[in-house]
Amino acid sequence: MPPAPALSHYFTALRQHPPLTHCITNYVAMNSSANVLLALGASPAMLHATEEVDEFVPLSDALSINIGTVSSPWANAMLSATRTARAHNIPWVLDPVAVGATTYRQRLCADLLKHQPRVIRGNASEILTLNGIANPGRGVDSTASAEDAYMAACRLARKQRCIVGVSGDIDLMTDGDSTLRVTGGHTLMPRVTTLGCALSASVAAFMAVADEQPLEATAAAFGCFALAGARAGVKAEGPGSFMPAFLDALYQLTPQDLDQHLSLELIDAL
Amino acid sequence: MPPAPALSHYFTALRQHPPLTHCITNYVAMNSSANVLLALGASPAMLHATEEVDEFVPLSDALSINIGTVSSPWANAMLSATRTARAHNIPWVLDPVAVGATTYRQRLCADLLKHQPRVIRGNASEILTLNGIANPGRGVDSTASAEDAYMAACRLARKQRCIVGVSGDIDLMTDGDSTLRVTGGHTLMPRVTTLGCALSASVAAFMAVADEQPLEATAAAFGCFALAGARAGVKAEGPGSFMPAFLDALYQLTPQDLDQHLSLELIDAL
Amino acid sequence: MPPAPALSHYFTALRQHPPLTHCITNYVAMNSSANVLLALGASPAMLHATEEVDEFVPLSDALSINIGTVSSPWANAMLSATRTARAHNIPWVLDPVAVGATTYRQRLCADLLKHQPRVIRGNASEILTLNGIANPGRGVDSTASAEDAYMAACRLARKQRCIVGVSGDIDLMTDGDSTLRVTGGHTLMPRVTTLGCALSASVAAFMAVADEQPLEATAAAFGCFALAGARAGVKAEGPGSFMPAFLDALYQLTPQDLDQHLSLELIDAL
Repeated sequence: MPPAPALSHYFTALRQHPPLTHCITNYVAMNSSANVLLALGASPAMLHATEEVDEFVPLSDALSINIGTVSSPWANAMLSATRTARAHNIPWVLDPVAVGATTYRQRLCADLLKHQPRVIRGNASEILTLNGIANPGRGVDSTASAEDAYMAACRLARKQRCIVGVSGDIDLMTDGDSTLRVTGGHTLMPRVTTLGCALSASVAAFMAVADEQPLEATAAAFGCFALAGARAGVKAEGPGSFMPAFLDALYQLTPQDLDQHLSLELIDAL
Repeated sequence: MPPAPALSHYFTALRQHPPLTHCITNYVAMNSSANVLLALGASPAMLHATEEVDEFVPLSDALSINIGTVSSPWANAMLSATRTARAHNIPWVLDPVAVGATTYRQRLCADLLKHQPRVIRGNASEILTLNGIANPGRGVDSTASAEDAYMAACRLARKQRCIVGVSGDIDLMTDGDSTLRVTGGHTLMPRVTTLGCALSASVAAFMAVADEQPLEATAAAFGCFALAGARAGVKAEGPGSFMPAFLDALYQLTPQDLDQHLSLELIDAL
Repeated sequence: MPPAPALSHYFTALRQHPPLTHCITNYVAMNSSANVLLALGASPAMLHATEEVDEFVPLSDALSINIGTVSSPWANAMLSATRTARAHNIPWVLDPVAVGATTYRQRLCADLLKHQPRVIRGNASEILTLNGIANPGRGVDSTASAEDAYMAACRLARKQRCIVGVSGDIDLMTDGDSTLRVTGGHTLMPRVTTLGCALSASVAAFMAVADEQPLEATAAAFGCFALAGARAGVKAEGPGSFMPAFLDALYQLTPQDLDQHLSLELIDAL
């Protein structure tokens, strides 16, 4: 296998030109996603009124769509914003939270996928569901392993011509041909709500500086979470002290950390 | 009086089989409720679209309804979800936030009560209001003592055939016949927003493992808050550091703590 | 110049008679605004249903309006609440988040201004936009300096007959004739989301104890943030640990701190 790519320059670019990252996300994740983006060095914007999203999307550098607490007015805003994003070549990321739980979510995701996300970021169950594979996932916690989802991620990436990033015990991201594996993080992370949502928003911010390399830029976002998560886990006494420590670690992270301390592999198969 | 019951096995059961706890709650409390449920060991799910709640409720193990920032679409979702929960025998908990403040809240709670909550969890003012007693409470902070609400709680529990849990300087929970008193917590707790809301969500999670003993399972949830609150209060320097310390303490709490360290009494009257 | 005014008695009054502070604010800021109000000593209430706002506003002591994540039902509630507040002489504060970003926000703010806010609190870009001056601000982060906004703030204050408070590297507040400058805070503050929103809510709480001196009461709220921010900055290791430290510092702040430790100047011009 060739060596894993260097990722530091994506993070350097993000800090030099903070991307205005428009998030239409769930109520639970709004505050933490904004704080994660600010700690990374990006500039968050949360707005969703159908009266203004189409005017705002072209002003932004990237868009993050998360269906966690979606309802009808929000679904309309998401569909409108992603259509506009595609028309203006603004990269957007889909986080299909709990897509397997209800028919409503499956239909909405099917409609959103028509507007060509640059990246889909989910857990194994969600990626399996999007790929049309029945799976026993309930709620927002995945019951399938990342390994189970590897093949599904590759197929989905090829079909949608986008990057698919799978979070779990092992983090994988693929364009359908090349697959990268990021190792790190901490066992407390699944005990803190909305970290996955905030990761999706961070992937969107990195898309603004991806420079035709969306797979590597996605890995840079996952890498920031893996490194900051590991460092926060050392300091934390539980999930409560983890979150402040995680934001501090993201803020203190340097671009060079991605090249020097991240466990990143280009892989063939699991 | 007979001795107070042992509560550890409810907490053991919750950790062994994390209940999927569906919350239709207020915007302020969503993130903290999810984090509290995760720290306890439960699995939170926040969703409220009328297009999907009736499909999701039967998949969940318990439902928590909190009217804090309710508006018309949310009220519709709450009424639909509680009707479905009752039909499927999914236990649900009502948190009647600030029910005394407006006519709109009183009407909504009257409608929700028709769907038979397993538990009502509120402060003294809210319980007094639900019992049809005029009281001077304004906003979300209670101006009546738990003692004032004791009689009201017993009457409400008998009338609604449910558990009523009252939070305040003293925590009481009753089925109308037996009443338990939990002592603990910390004076900083009223200075941290949404702890009461997160307690209601936790009561719902414990209902999933109540095994025909909803009074004791309610006391287990209150007991976790009392113990974790006291421990967090020792570490905290103010309300800001209290919340991370509280989540850490919930996470570190063991089932045995409930039997060995909780001040729990079966009482006759106040 | 005459000496800067003493501000401690506003904070003393707030703690002696906690104002019920009604917030119709954005989803990102709800939790942090409630926690900031509680740490200061005020009593927050978050509700926005058009079915109840007009009944609730007259029960409250102050109202804070923030358009951060506004949509049509929220805009209706804001317009109704501010109309009722004006009719009942309840002081209200406008936070025109990102008003320069879209036509929708500009129209809404123009409509809200007809109901005569007691205070407008924003960053330099927002104040410039409200004053009808084109500016290159995008999103919620200001790209204009407080100095640039000084003249705009004075003009806006005179035109609207209200206080205008501008947050930034330098904090200014003016009634159009007299201008106060507060110095303090910490460089981490712009890296933590919703501090500005929570400041607006705090200004509203101080309006309930302003006693015909809204300029000084506004300065008291800004002063609490400047002092608590500076103290939290000393303790924090990044934006994550800043927020808990900031709430602790607000909670520990004494009224006397405002007179003894705050850098406050009455200024002529910048």
